[in-house]
This record gives sequence, C-alpha cells and structure tokens, in this order.
Amino acid sequence: MTREQLFQLIQKKKSFLCVGLDSDINKIPQHLLEKDDPVFEFNKAIIDATIDYTVAYKPNLAFYESRGSEGLISLEKTIAYLNERKDEVFTIADAKRGDIGNTSAQYAKAFLETYGFDSITVAPYMGEDSVSPFLSLENKWVILLVLTSNKGAFDFQLIENKESGKRLFEEVLKTSQKWGNADNMMYVVGATKAEMLSDIRNIIPNHFLLVPGVGAQGGSLEEVAKYGLNKQCGLLVNSSRGIIFKSHGKDFTEVAKAEAKKLQEQMAEVLTNNNLL
Amino acid sequence: MTREQLFQLIQKKKSFLCVGLDSDINKIPQHLLEKDDPVFEFNKAIIDATIDYTVAYKPNLAFYESRGSEGLISLEKTIAYLNERKDEVFTIADAKRGDIGNTSAQYAKAFLETYGFDSITVAPYMGEDSVSPFLSLENKWVILLVLTSNKGAFDFQLIENKESGKRLFEEVLKTSQKWGNADNMMYVVGATKAEMLSDIRNIIPNHFLLVPGVGAQGGSLEEVAKYGLNKQCGLLVNSSRGIIFKSHGKDFTEVAKAEAKKLQEQMAEVLTNNNLL
Repeated sequence: MTREQLFQLIQKKKSFLCVGLDSDINKIPQHLLEKDDPVFEFNKAIIDATIDYTVAYKPNLAFYESRGSEGLISLEKTIAYLNERKDEVFTIADAKRGDIGNTSAQYAKAFLETYGFDSITVAPYMGEDSVSPFLSLENKWVILLVLTSNKGAFDFQLIENKESGKRLFEEVLKTSQKWGNADNMMYVVGATKAEMLSDIRNIIPNHFLLVPGVGAQGGSLEEVAKYGLNKQCGLLVNSSRGIIFKSHGKDFTEVAKAEAKKLQEQMAEVLTNNNLL
Repeated sequence: MTREQLFQLIQKKKSFLCVGLDSDINKIPQHLLEKDDPVFEFNKAIIDATIDYTVAYKPNLAFYESRGSEGLISLEKTIAYLNERKDEVFTIADAKRGDIGNTSAQYAKAFLETYGFDSITVAPYMGEDSVSPFLSLENKWVILLVLTSNKGAFDFQLIENKESGKRLFEEVLKTSQKWGNADNMMYVVGATKAEMLSDIRNIIPNHFLLVPGVGAQGGSLEEVAKYGLNKQCGLLVNSSRGIIFKSHGKDFTEVAKAEAKKLQEQMAEVLTNNNLL
C-alpha cells in the first residue's frame, strides 16, 4: 500500500485507528479455548467486528512467539486472513527487529515476504545497515522506533548530543532521513510525549507516525491530533486492550465493535475539523 | 547455568567458543534437503561435530523466522537437542528483542521458558522496563547490545552525552548496571572495537562479554583476549560462517569439527597464557 492509498483509506473509513492484536491466549474469552486455534478464531472475530472502523491491524509478535511454533501458525492464519482484505487494511508486524545487514535481510524476508505484512517496526540502535535491508522491498514500510511511551524511554532517548545539542531521538529522526523517505518510512512516537510531537513534526512534516496508544497510556487523541496531523493525516493511532479485551465474555465482538466505533467517530470529527475529509 | 558453572565449562573444554547456528536453508549442504527437517538435521550434525570444542550455541532467530512456523519448528527441535546436553552447553537465543514491560515479559516467556534457552540478546533503546522483565527468571541471562560490530554502530553508539561526556554505549553500560549484575547480565561487544574493550572493562570488570566474531568481522582473537579477558575468562567468542559453512559438501561435519578445533586450540593457549586453566 502506498502513502496515497493509505490516506484514501483513512478518508474512506473516516478513521486512522490501528487495532493492536496483542492476542494473549490467557486473556481471550474462555469459550474460544475449545476451538482448534483459539487465538486465530479470536483475531478473526475481532477483525470482522472492527474492520469498518479500522485502517490498520498490528499483531505484536511477542504474544505469538510465547507459544512457540503454534503461536506462529496462529499469526500466519491471521495475516493470511487480513491479506484477503489487502486493499482495506494496512498491516503492521510489531516486531521491533534489527540486526546486522544479512540478518536484517532475513527478518525482512520473514515479515514482508513470507508473512506478507505491509510494514514492520524496527529498532534503531544498530544504525543504518541494520535498517536499510527492510527498505529494499517495493511498497513495504519500516516503522522506526523513535520516542517510546514507556518509562524506560527516559534512560537514553533524551540524552543530548554534546556536538549538536540534539536529543538522541532527534538524532535518530535526522539521521534516518537519509535511509528512506516519507513513502517507505514511518516512526513510532509515544502518545505521552504529545508536546514533543511538534518538535518531531518540525523535523518530519510529511512522514506517517504510529502512536502506540491514547488514553490508558497517557496523552489524549485531541492533543496527538493537534500536534501530529499533517496534510495526509499522517497518523495511525493504536488501541489494543481498550478494544480487544474490553469484554472477556461471549459479547466480546459487540463490545470491540462499539469501542472501535467510538474511536472512529472521534477520529472522524478530528479529520473533519482539519479539512482532511 | 550460573557464572561459576560457565567458567568451569570453559576450563573443562579449554575453550570459550560459541558456534552461531545461522542456519540459512539456502546455504546448508544440498544433500540434506531430502530430509524431513533439513535445518534441524544440519544443526544436529554441526552440534555433534563441534560440541567437544564449544561451550555455547547461538541460533539467530532471523534465519528460522524467515521460514515462518516451519522454521520455528526446526528451532524448537534444535534447542530441545541442546537441552539434552544442558550441562555442557550454554545456549543463546540471538533475538535482539525488546518492547514495553508486559510485551518483553512475553518474549522472556517465549525464549527462556517455552524454548528453554539459557539467555537472550536484548536491545537497549527502550530502557530499563523493556529489559528487566527478562531478568526476572532464575538462572537466566540477558545479553545486552552495547557496541555492535557493524558499520551502523557509528550512527548512534558513539554519540557523546553533553551532560556526562560519555558515549552512548558507555551510558548503556553504566545505566544497565542498576538493572542486573554480573550473574544475570552479559554484553555484546563487537570485536572490531577491540581497543574500546579496555574502556569497557574499566566500567565492567566482572561481566561476561559476547563477542560476535573475530577474523572475518575484524579484530583478532589475541587482541580481544588481551583487552577482554578477566579472572573467570569473561568472554564468549562467536564464529558462524567460518565453521558451519566452511564446507557445503558432504564433508561439512569434518570440516566444521576441524575449524572448531583450530579455534579451541588457540583459545586453550590464550587461557593457559593467562593462568585461567
């Protein structure tokens, strides 16, 4: 999916919602456990219930890997199901991978070819040659970690460079500009740092940003939109637990649908107020 | 395995060799492809041929993930085979994982429990709460990326902190001291930065270091030993291609054995010269 196609999808659904499929088998509704593949059945039901309000789906690999190869089978079925609906969903492998060149190339192959995700989250610590292998595939995206929403973000991401005075996350933003462009790179920016979003937008006015969460993880949708929107929306805002685990009972799909719809309606208002529809 | 047990294993085998099982199915000897699980058969043969000279095995997850769930099945069989020999091998999941707290906990579960590796490589960008979940399991190790051996290491790892004057990799070393100790943390230090090893040893005299490669990746065994050894050896030096892909023919096990033995003999000399045997 190209940037233009993603923006058109956002306009069509009046939404920039990303649903995080952090599908922990210990948290899904218990009645699904009798199924052959409970996690896949769960994901399928969530996708069906929310797809009208959602432009992106983001499984986090950890929840699948914790079950070994069986978990990866659930993931394979999930991405295959999403790929039957390729034109109306943008898919993100939340893997936060990164390694030396030839190894990153294998990760790129795994997620962008073998599984067929549109994009993959990547960690920046090892620099250019650990990231660029992910950028060599047509119509595929890297979503680079920049400013994360957790407490540990304060350990290193705000360290000021003696030479430039810039903070580490700004150096990551600046340096990574040379590796790709706004048509194959996006950035992860934690919503709790909403005021830093304007600093970030000064450096990258055109790139899409993946915002891991609003509400529970801090930072409101209004704030994120205020500082983060651009002329093609430029935002994907994620919600996981607030949608997929809002109910643990047999009504989990209705509840998920209602929660997704609520967020989509807020987003529609934001898009309208900013003349993006 | 505890630090003391690892040192005893090093003394017993007169070796600090780690064999990297970067078992790319496109590079293993072709005659294995007729087997049900060619990669597992390859790994098993390599392990059998090299185990007398080797104290650690390090599969890199990318090469298994690139084959989807099938690749993870090969990995599961490999770690199970290694775990039948638990007392004479230290196992490393080279995964370079890291995510917010509860997600890192799932990765810890995946690799340290479900698969049963002794240790896992972890990326530091997201700070303490992305790393500490891996440290909550008894007798298990985190191997934290500090200074990597690739060109991209120069992008961020050497940035000097305006406040302290320290370089980023030194900040990672210093800050991570508070998260664990020399009995549950090790560090990845690229061999090409051998002269920086003494800077590193000044900060962490007692921790084990995983050195990704010598020779092909730059930096000699003698240099690494000179600057990196400590009173319990404190080094695990990895070799992948130079051992496992030295031959692509039917003699691949004999050749792997010979290469591992060569390195072990060099290491035995180093250990003797430093009064560690």
